Amino acid sequence: MTPFSFRLLRKDPATGARLGLMRTAHGLVQTPAFMPVGTQGTVKGLLPETVRDIGAQIILANTYHLYLRPGHRLIEDMGGLHRFMNWPGPILTDSGGFQVYSLAGLRKITEEGVLFQSHIDGSRHVLTPEKAVEIQESLGSDIMMCFDECTPYPADHDYARKSMERTLRWAKRCRDAGKTGRGALFGIIQGGMYPDLREKSAGETVKTGFDGYALGGLSVGETKEDMLRVVEIAEPLLPDDRPRYVMGVGMPEDILACVTRGIDLFDCVLPTRTARNGMLFTNSGKLVIRHAQYRNDEGPVDGDCDCYTCRHYSRAYLRHLFMAGEILALVLNTIHNVRYYTRFMETLRAAIRSGEMAGFREDFEKKRGDGDRVHDREPL
Amino acid sequence: MTPFSFRLLRKDPATGARLGLMRTAHGLVQTPAFMPVGTQGTVKGLLPETVRDIGAQIILANTYHLYLRPGHRLIEDMGGLHRFMNWPGPILTDSGGFQVYSLAGLRKITEEGVLFQSHIDGSRHVLTPEKAVEIQESLGSDIMMCFDECTPYPADHDYARKSMERTLRWAKRCRDAGKTGRGALFGIIQGGMYPDLREKSAGETVKTGFDGYALGGLSVGETKEDMLRVVEIAEPLLPDDRPRYVMGVGMPEDILACVTRGIDLFDCVLPTRTARNGMLFTNSGKLVIRHAQYRNDEGPVDGDCDCYTCRHYSRAYLRHLFMAGEILALVLNTIHNVRYYTRFMETLRAAIRSGEMAGFREDFEKKRGDGDRVHDREPL
Repeated sequence: MTPFSFRLLRKDPATGARLGLMRTAHGLVQTPAFMPVGTQGTVKGLLPETVRDIGAQIILANTYHLYLRPGHRLIEDMGGLHRFMNWPGPILTDSGGFQVYSLAGLRKITEEGVLFQSHIDGSRHVLTPEKAVEIQESLGSDIMMCFDECTPYPADHDYARKSMERTLRWAKRCRDAGKTGRGALFGIIQGGMYPDLREKSAGETVKTGFDGYALGGLSVGETKEDMLRVVEIAEPLLPDDRPRYVMGVGMPEDILACVTRGIDLFDCVLPTRTARNGMLFTNSGKLVIRHAQYRNDEGPVDGDCDCYTCRHYSRAYLRHLFMAGEILALVLNTIHNVRYYTRFMETLRAAIRSGEMAGFREDFEKKRGDGDRVHDREPL
Repeated sequence: MTPFSFRLLRKDPATGARLGLMRTAHGLVQTPAFMPVGTQGTVKGLLPETVRDIGAQIILANTYHLYLRPGHRLIEDMGGLHRFMNWPGPILTDSGGFQVYSLAGLRKITEEGVLFQSHIDGSRHVLTPEKAVEIQESLGSDIMMCFDECTPYPADHDYARKSMERTLRWAKRCRDAGKTGRGALFGIIQGGMYPDLREKSAGETVKTGFDGYALGGLSVGETKEDMLRVVEIAEPLLPDDRPRYVMGVGMPEDILACVTRGIDLFDCVLPTRTARNGMLFTNSGKLVIRHAQYRNDEGPVDGDCDCYTCRHYSRAYLRHLFMAGEILALVLNTIHNVRYYTRFMETLRAAIRSGEMAGFREDFEKKRGDGDRVHDREPL
């Protein structure tokens, strides 16, 4: 039996936001939750204890990357990914689908699966629904994702339909492929930006039956309006007693918009990647640490923030580290940005719990306006 | 008054090794001690709390680097280097001399000081004995070093003599330049590989009078025998009640050889730099983590080691991180190597305390033989 369950604790009548509790083989996750991305078996720049201290409850690892290097069999031999990377908490693994489709080189899709070349050494590999599940089971994933085709954007109706239908067939194969029963399995809804296809995909995926449901093929270049429209079409078709996950989203304002449309789970490389580029999230907007104005700025990155970086370092020091190319710049910036995200999720959960979500959303939107959209999944 | 003192607790009759206690404005240092190098206001890759937890009592910062970027005035305005970098413990600063001489571009030595060009932007600067002390006082250094000329290797007797005599004149100017009285000041003995010049330098430097004495111009390409000969010539001329420091040394076996010749302080980029290149120190020799033999090695880097890295990660994981170019590889490797050094110094202190130093040296030399010499100061 899968040691996985989800309990819906509260649904905010004013906004549709949900408060939930997800139980996995490696612990609990309060939802809505954000999953920092640990592509290659490490959240870039952070010790796992730091990831936990920052308030992350669950991390995402990339099947494609770990399959190629160091190899899922090696990780299995080392006692599984949790032990290998010293992260005792829950891990969600993607299926590798998104990465395989974003490869620039050889890539051939058939009914069986996808033939592709490694970005590391050009070697040829085939990923199938069965193989994707096998890899994720070897890793010891708590939540596995179905192997899907991430429909490109834009795609015409005919292509999007064929692609979505293949994803449905693959979803059934994934469901039947699991051997260990230890990891939960989430289905992925595709269908591009077409309402009829998203409806069909949602209905059929739910009929196949999974532990949770994800919306794929978003955050790939579409407008925010399109993204939210897709969420609004699919969400009512999903069962209340299963977690819902929008993959690769994203910006705090997009997360908020999805939460108020009934979504529970998120992942994005944005906080970690932008941190390494010196872009820091604050309650009063984005801060580019290399800017000369911070040269002798004694203040913390964000006066509202309780993170280790904000408690101990000035903007002047962080700017110095960044300009000097120091490793510690990446570490301290990442601590801050990931904490910004986990704190944001804590605030959302508190607002849902106390019935203040509608007011929170109004305040947030007044304060921020709409930031630039960013494409924010790990392509390679 | 300088809040600095040194107490010689024990001198091992069999080997000449010394156990001491150094008191600085920012805390105590048990000697013999190794100082990790924090060139640009950070021990590369480590949080200051980690540096402390690993057992480092004092760190070294580079005047040349901090003068150019972010600038000593800026650091002074931010409350000094301790506060700027969040390191509450003792800091020793070098004088910038070594870096200025190792510059490839313009560099002109006069009696007044050294004209040089920044390696960052080519801008021209003059460093004098007075300026070097002024910078170090701005940084809030606990132990400042005199501005010296690091005699090149090899140098003929005439050049080495002139250079040494200039260093003596500069030492007096440094002694007279201090304004705040907060930092201790160490004199530096030069004289190349020439016994008569080293004797003269030691005698005159002691006559000028400093809080401690360093041997400079070593670890610059000479043989280990030459290095130890210079130590043996100078050491008997130094007062027992002042700490002695061999700059830029080095390999554990060289540190041991110097400790048994009465030296108390050491610094070297070796543990941190080699860590970033994937070379790890262990009690059974050096370990190059990228080697294929560690691919699926479940064991820790060093079974004898108590560091965070060895307690939580396998060689297989560390190899994976290194091959994948992950930041965490640099962090975990650095934690291990710095801990190897601080643990080595703890072992030396325990051996001196218990009167077992001669036996320890014999065991160590039997086990290891002589490693490759490495030039191990931070040139730029």
